Amino acid sequence: MKRARVAAGGVLHDAVEENGCIKLEDGRLLNEENVEWLPPVQPQTTFALGLNYADHAKELSFKAPEEPLVFLKGPNTFIGHRGETKRPQEAENMHYECELGVVIGRTAKDVKKEDAYDYVAGYTIGNDYAIRDYLENYYRPNLRVKNRDTCTPLGPWFVDRDDIYDPMNLTLKTYINDRLTQEGTTADMIFKIPDLIEYLSSFMTLNPNDVILTGTPEGLDQVHAGDTVVTEIEGIGALTNYIRHA
Amino acid sequence: MKRARVAAGGVLHDAVEENGCIKLEDGRLLNEENVEWLPPVQPQTTFALGLNYADHAKELSFKAPEEPLVFLKGPNTFIGHRGETKRPQEAENMHYECELGVVIGRTAKDVKKEDAYDYVAGYTIGNDYAIRDYLENYYRPNLRVKNRDTCTPLGPWFVDRDDIYDPMNLTLKTYINDRLTQEGTTADMIFKIPDLIEYLSSFMTLNPNDVILTGTPEGLDQVHAGDTVVTEIEGIGALTNYIRHA
Repeated sequence: MKRARVAAGGVLHDAVEENGCIKLEDGRLLNEENVEWLPPVQPQTTFALGLNYADHAKELSFKAPEEPLVFLKGPNTFIGHRGETKRPQEAENMHYECELGVVIGRTAKDVKKEDAYDYVAGYTIGNDYAIRDYLENYYRPNLRVKNRDTCTPLGPWFVDRDDIYDPMNLTLKTYINDRLTQEGTTADMIFKIPDLIEYLSSFMTLNPNDVILTGTPEGLDQVHAGDTVVTEIEGIGALTNYIRHA
Repeated sequence: MKRARVAAGGVLHDAVEENGCIKLEDGRLLNEENVEWLPPVQPQTTFALGLNYADHAKELSFKAPEEPLVFLKGPNTFIGHRGETKRPQEAENMHYECELGVVIGRTAKDVKKEDAYDYVAGYTIGNDYAIRDYLENYYRPNLRVKNRDTCTPLGPWFVDRDDIYDPMNLTLKTYINDRLTQEGTTADMIFKIPDLIEYLSSFMTLNPNDVILTGTPEGLDQVHAGDTVVTEIEGIGALTNYIRHA
């Protein structure tokens, strides 16, 4: 099942997908143009991976990490499907990053790799924009790079775990104004979903609705005000975002 | 006024300080031994500063930063006054860090230095333990260093802004088992409270109850299971914490 959180008629709804429409709890069917999409989950903690695809690390002239390079993201940065992301006026380098988001389903502490998927509720899509002007070095995806208001669209759907046969073998694509600019596969992740859950839960408690954004493959490109950016993951959906002047 | 959040008799209470006691909303006065202290605020986002005192940066053999070195902290890491912090079994270096916590009072975006205190609700004390085994370099206060469960006591009190005459001139002290091991003053911060609010709000929205942990001065020391660690800030209070085996 595909789940969403939408606002319609002044009310916040939990919704599900039905025949390409949005079905509210009361059975009403709406088109996606007639709702305001919110991020499909409200994480307590959101983790994001740096350089978790070897080809992407190479593209940025970094060597691939030997342990997961993880940072946290603040809630200010998230917006939903069809939302507007503000491009900082002074920035020269603003890149999209199509990423598989793993949604945690139950409290996880000291989880072993082989049990990791038991703790996954499902998947979503994140577009973890980076303002690379402020990336001083390998180790510093600092707040100005990765935590600006509106710079992480999430959604549209949260898809149940069991609906995705193999999350480690999904195609990711990004389009700018309908032009394909990024294509990769989750098969190329350095640290796989079970690795990440084992690693993080070895020293932190993961909670239901927490999200792990698992990194992006090669194929970065600039975005500019006026662009429409679509990040798409096989079986999960297509997340649309509009770039606007700050 | 000094405010706290405590649990007593199976109920969560907002409380205030009165003559050294804890006064609940219904007027009951309790001793501090008779409640369970929680962190005095529930931030949406918690920021922490690295190397924000020049003497401390030098102590760690780093040069002082030229812009604020800020990272985020997850909610899993916070505990209240008189709580127990687990020392990871494999860690060789676990250091306390007494820090002034600034509590945001209203939504802040693009705030100028000269207006910054208008956005401050008050102050608290944080003990931002660092597991330095995992500190690979200057730029990486990674999650295993700074985001472990229970590793950031906060409290006991949240003190109203107007009760602190000059937050940039307060003595900070840490005691291990009653032995004074750290003494400094907030006057030595590199980036002052108004600098930090201007900087962060220039690219992120700060929300009420968000906390900025402003860094620690020189005087680090090891803590071990069985230790009682007290971090104290002039006019704000004394935060007690017990170190336990993980």
